[in-house]
Amino acid sequence: MRQANRPPPSWPDPMASLASAPPPLLLKHRDAIEAALRAAIGSDSARISAAARYVLGWEDEAGRPAAGGGKRIRPALCLFAAELFGADAAVAMPGAVAVEIVHNFSLVHDEVQDHDAERHGRPTLWARLGEGQAINAGDYLYTRAIAALSAGPGDASLRLAALNVLQDAIQRMIRGQWEDIAFESRLDVGVDEYLAMVAGKTGALLGAPLEIGALLAGAAPTDAAVLGRWGVQVGLAFQAQDDYLGTWGDPGETGKSNVNDIARRKKTLPVVYGLSHPASKDAVAAAYTKAGELTSGDIAAVVAALDAAGAAEDCRARARQYAEAAEALLESLSLDEARRAQLREVADYLVDRRS
Amino acid sequence: MRQANRPPPSWPDPMASLASAPPPLLLKHRDAIEAALRAAIGSDSARISAAARYVLGWEDEAGRPAAGGGKRIRPALCLFAAELFGADAAVAMPGAVAVEIVHNFSLVHDEVQDHDAERHGRPTLWARLGEGQAINAGDYLYTRAIAALSAGPGDASLRLAALNVLQDAIQRMIRGQWEDIAFESRLDVGVDEYLAMVAGKTGALLGAPLEIGALLAGAAPTDAAVLGRWGVQVGLAFQAQDDYLGTWGDPGETGKSNVNDIARRKKTLPVVYGLSHPASKDAVAAAYTKAGELTSGDIAAVVAALDAAGAAEDCRARARQYAEAAEALLESLSLDEARRAQLREVADYLVDRRS
Repeated sequence: MRQANRPPPSWPDPMASLASAPPPLLLKHRDAIEAALRAAIGSDSARISAAARYVLGWEDEAGRPAAGGGKRIRPALCLFAAELFGADAAVAMPGAVAVEIVHNFSLVHDEVQDHDAERHGRPTLWARLGEGQAINAGDYLYTRAIAALSAGPGDASLRLAALNVLQDAIQRMIRGQWEDIAFESRLDVGVDEYLAMVAGKTGALLGAPLEIGALLAGAAPTDAAVLGRWGVQVGLAFQAQDDYLGTWGDPGETGKSNVNDIARRKKTLPVVYGLSHPASKDAVAAAYTKAGELTSGDIAAVVAALDAAGAAEDCRARARQYAEAAEALLESLSLDEARRAQLREVADYLVDRRS
Repeated sequence: MRQANRPPPSWPDPMASLASAPPPLLLKHRDAIEAALRAAIGSDSARISAAARYVLGWEDEAGRPAAGGGKRIRPALCLFAAELFGADAAVAMPGAVAVEIVHNFSLVHDEVQDHDAERHGRPTLWARLGEGQAINAGDYLYTRAIAALSAGPGDASLRLAALNVLQDAIQRMIRGQWEDIAFESRLDVGVDEYLAMVAGKTGALLGAPLEIGALLAGAAPTDAAVLGRWGVQVGLAFQAQDDYLGTWGDPGETGKSNVNDIARRKKTLPVVYGLSHPASKDAVAAAYTKAGELTSGDIAAVVAALDAAGAAEDCRARARQYAEAAEALLESLSLDEARRAQLREVADYLVDRRS
């Protein structure tokens, strides 16, 4: 367990940092998604069910209606993928619901692991009900996600194929989460290891909704798989960009401090790069192993060392590289130019903001 | 989270208390089950995969081979159910593997919730690796269980039906686990509430392997459902009997102390009964709310009060009642007398021991 007296070094939901509103093509089914999610979670009076509704943002601590809820980007991607392949968005709804519930299950367990007491200004579930019940609530959400596909409507083979993609993505996400925690106690994390962790922790649950949406739409499995890989690459580009902005972004544009990552001793891409570069490793290691809080002087010294080692350029180059890898995958998709343009619009929203 | 300085009040695996060896019909596929479990967990070098192998009992802390492993009663029940309906046991193996892995996932999370530092003489996973990684390892095992059915061989509709039974059982198990934790801070738990909790926490994962095995064997869904209900009733009978023995059993026969349940302030069936009975509720409540450890005099006073209230008779009567309910369900199964006799043999093994 991470020490409760140290700020958590990881990001339960990196996508929460997306400042701007999603493009219309990711917004148009918002009400239908919300209704399907509510149906999947249910409204029974058991406290574990109320805990699930709290996590999804529909109820406050006392069970009163709340206006909350996340951006629902993952389910929107799932429906978008079905439409890309000419199907009605509704055919992909069971997959959209399953992926969003999995995302919420992962947040609940992540908050326990990180000892995060708040999310979006509300107490996290473990802070309200204890770690034991938060673990149960996360497990419960997991069962609701599987049920959305296993008990949902539609062709059995397609649903089973979708379930298989989903469980594989969850597995990669959890492996990523395991590595993320393991990295906390290490100063020798390699850039490749870091990126493999990100591919699991962030990428898997961006690729899966796209692949699942395409599968449920009846797309060829090869097309669905390529679209899933596109999502993983976009996720990696997003994370590299997010890590860059976390140190060098303009706080006026990003809406968050650009020293926070280092102050919290997060092992971001530039930091992992810096820890392996001769020009910066001593300075970064000194700050990341120092007892007590970092001063603004400590933080400035880390940034200066990262600058000297070329960490900012490396980070931006990788973000571009992943975006280009995503773009290259579009070539092998049997989609027309208008639909590829829609995919670019989604990638731009996720990656190119505030740069 | 439960207080770490107080012994845990719940039983991570009640079946672990079964002293005698399973009957031959639950033992004959032991090697095949073990091989299939190993294939499902895999042998890759990632530490999360090694953690899974440790939980299943195949490796020690250093990754060296270990002889361990549980009784594997649940997967044996799944294969047995397939054979009952005339199929080869192999058709049910994906279900057998899935159920056993789910059972292990639940143990790992339960140990975190109860702060149990040891199981079967070995450190629990959270005690070795921290709560965060134990949560991850449990989640990871969950994905492996789903994969055993979603990615396994066989007819898609049958596998999906099996998955649906499995996720429903997991959901009931987790609701039971939630209630079990919620009961810790309550003195007004009713007998019916307690039994509903047991039906989820213990019963669901005894009924599910039977129902799944029957489904995968091609049995009529109604027969499979009745067999599943039979398993839940047997689970309830088992728990009532286990709770009786935990206070009134002969330690020479049961192999465990008969004051341990009360010393640990477990809310067992007789205790829940005693807390609602006028003749015992004050004495039981006094002991269960007393600060510090209970003396042997405190424990004797609780047992005397439970005796006066008729808690032992109530407990045994309920065990008989559930066993009879299970027996009555056999009537509506389309199985011949020889096969019903096998089911009775299984029930006798699980329930009638050491009485």
